[in-house]
Amino acid sequence: MAVKLSDLETPCFVLDINRVEQNAKRMRDTCERLKLTLRPHTKTHKTLGAALLQTGGSKRCIAVSTLAEAEFYASQGFDDILLAHPITDSKIKRCLNLMKELENFHVFVSDSAGLSTLKAHEADLPPAKVWSIVIEVDAGYGRTGFDIAGQEVIDAALSITESAKMTLSGVYCHCGDSYSIFSKKDRETLQSKTVGLLCSLEARFNKLGISCPFGTGSTPTCSLPISQNSKLSEFHPGNYIFYDYEQYLLNACKESDIAGRVMTRVIAHKPEKGMILVDCGFTAISHDGIAQRLPEDDFCLIQGESNLKMIGMSQEIGKIVAKLGDLDCSQYPIGTIFFIYPYHACAAVAMHQVFYVHSGDQVVDKWTPVKGW
Amino acid sequence: MAVKLSDLETPCFVLDINRVEQNAKRMRDTCERLKLTLRPHTKTHKTLGAALLQTGGSKRCIAVSTLAEAEFYASQGFDDILLAHPITDSKIKRCLNLMKELENFHVFVSDSAGLSTLKAHEADLPPAKVWSIVIEVDAGYGRTGFDIAGQEVIDAALSITESAKMTLSGVYCHCGDSYSIFSKKDRETLQSKTVGLLCSLEARFNKLGISCPFGTGSTPTCSLPISQNSKLSEFHPGNYIFYDYEQYLLNACKESDIAGRVMTRVIAHKPEKGMILVDCGFTAISHDGIAQRLPEDDFCLIQGESNLKMIGMSQEIGKIVAKLGDLDCSQYPIGTIFFIYPYHACAAVAMHQVFYVHSGDQVVDKWTPVKGW
Repeated sequence: MAVKLSDLETPCFVLDINRVEQNAKRMRDTCERLKLTLRPHTKTHKTLGAALLQTGGSKRCIAVSTLAEAEFYASQGFDDILLAHPITDSKIKRCLNLMKELENFHVFVSDSAGLSTLKAHEADLPPAKVWSIVIEVDAGYGRTGFDIAGQEVIDAALSITESAKMTLSGVYCHCGDSYSIFSKKDRETLQSKTVGLLCSLEARFNKLGISCPFGTGSTPTCSLPISQNSKLSEFHPGNYIFYDYEQYLLNACKESDIAGRVMTRVIAHKPEKGMILVDCGFTAISHDGIAQRLPEDDFCLIQGESNLKMIGMSQEIGKIVAKLGDLDCSQYPIGTIFFIYPYHACAAVAMHQVFYVHSGDQVVDKWTPVKGW
Repeated sequence: MAVKLSDLETPCFVLDINRVEQNAKRMRDTCERLKLTLRPHTKTHKTLGAALLQTGGSKRCIAVSTLAEAEFYASQGFDDILLAHPITDSKIKRCLNLMKELENFHVFVSDSAGLSTLKAHEADLPPAKVWSIVIEVDAGYGRTGFDIAGQEVIDAALSITESAKMTLSGVYCHCGDSYSIFSKKDRETLQSKTVGLLCSLEARFNKLGISCPFGTGSTPTCSLPISQNSKLSEFHPGNYIFYDYEQYLLNACKESDIAGRVMTRVIAHKPEKGMILVDCGFTAISHDGIAQRLPEDDFCLIQGESNLKMIGMSQEIGKIVAKLGDLDCSQYPIGTIFFIYPYHACAAVAMHQVFYVHSGDQVVDKWTPVKGW
């Protein structure tokens, strides 16, 4: 029986397959044009369906955020998987299992402690395998990673290349600082600076006879690349496969590129407060990822309703009011469906056990994300 | 093989069974003392284990927030279940199925539209069954529910009691406004006002020959009841079974009552920034439920570390710094375990597929919450 979007119970997460396909293709084309390897990140969707589209069906060369993702993709025939999360002792056992199963499984070393952890487990390596290491560098974002301009990253690279049990498979820079820059000029300045820092590090490596692919990620910068990007080897964005309201505000996508929406229904009216209540609470959309940049009352976009805004949520209920003027509740009868573009897709998606995949108004598939760690 | 907390991979959600049992017993004792029926809400935990403790093993008389919860508890032999969420047309079919399965399944009518929806489906009722209706009233919280002092709620009650296909099973008031009051005096004033409004409505009902149980919920008010509460018939709190940092700030519990914690490990140091990175990002704890009341940098409590605070999270990484003075990262080696009391347990719990139940340091069980809607 054909299921339409309007048949679905709410709240639910719906995914426009045509937009997902277009977003996947556009990023593959960008990388082809810039002669970059695309190593898509699966952290936003964590599904088989979207990873197939991201890799163009090759099932090769992905980045993941959790061991649960790595194990899931390995079980589905994927290979060349990078666990893009600082390696620590408690993750070693499962990493070793993945190394046995896969041709290429790479771990992330973000500081000298990570390197020591790997050295301490050299004796546990499967026969004929070495640690394939991607070095994470911090070019100013201020989270994890070696200081890109420091000496420690050089020492780490030397230590890796000199070890018989290690190989250097890349340098990775997330450049998440792009998420706080809303002007084109400032973003391009940041991108240019990041590429410059990566090229300087590459030059320092080269002087020591060390070479490996250098990559940069973040959906805003990969969606709006600058010509210097072709000096690098790799892009590793993740969010671009769905995009969201935040990427729209950052000009990284158009509204018509946003593939994932939370579908919700009007469940009550409060005419005396000019308020509509919907069945989308924080368990269906999440405030996370907002990072103090926007006032709470502009944290999502209600499709086609430019004068409506969500002003608060409890666990299962959201409150919608007019931005300007009075809200006539009778225009939105009980049962009216709204589609909400989440502020940060990675956070909204994390609230859902299933994504309803649709083409137009027709539900064509259900995708199940991997949960946990 | 005995599993200890320190054997668990992180991040994960751990639950102190002794505290859960104590919280369950304390609320049952409170209700016994005040001669109130306890109808515990299962929305926070959504598990079999916690609902058994909340009901003292009776499996009777609970409130749920989703149809998924109702169906799960019905399948586990629970009965007398209230779906405490405004009834709308799209939920009717599953409600009718629950009515067939259960002796007592109650729906929530929060406005006259809800009543019309039920009337429109009278012909679909199972043989010998009538709609068992709990009227939701709004005593000032400003979300869903009939205005407690208005005429519409009276008309609704009359309409229900005069219908051969409906029965009035209760009046329910969430009083969520208690969550924004941190002083004892102000809270007691609010509680007294809420009870007074409920008693006035009961008097208006009685004049018309209508009688039913009147209940009030919210963990802060039920944890700190006032003597007037015994004028009512029912308490329906939910969060109390776990409590959280917010309830601690509201004085509704002691720190030693908080049963649920997110366990996380140090994964990296940023000594130049005086920062520790942990493997608890927003997918493991959530910012939701904070509702603009606290600055972002005090949204959770790191157990036993009164000078540490979490200042930001990305998807899989949290940043911890010192509140005062410099942070000596070497005091917290990579792998150090922190236990974090979440700000709002209902939001943090929603991020987890499994709860590790422990007694002391020993993991004794795993509980699986019902997900979805």
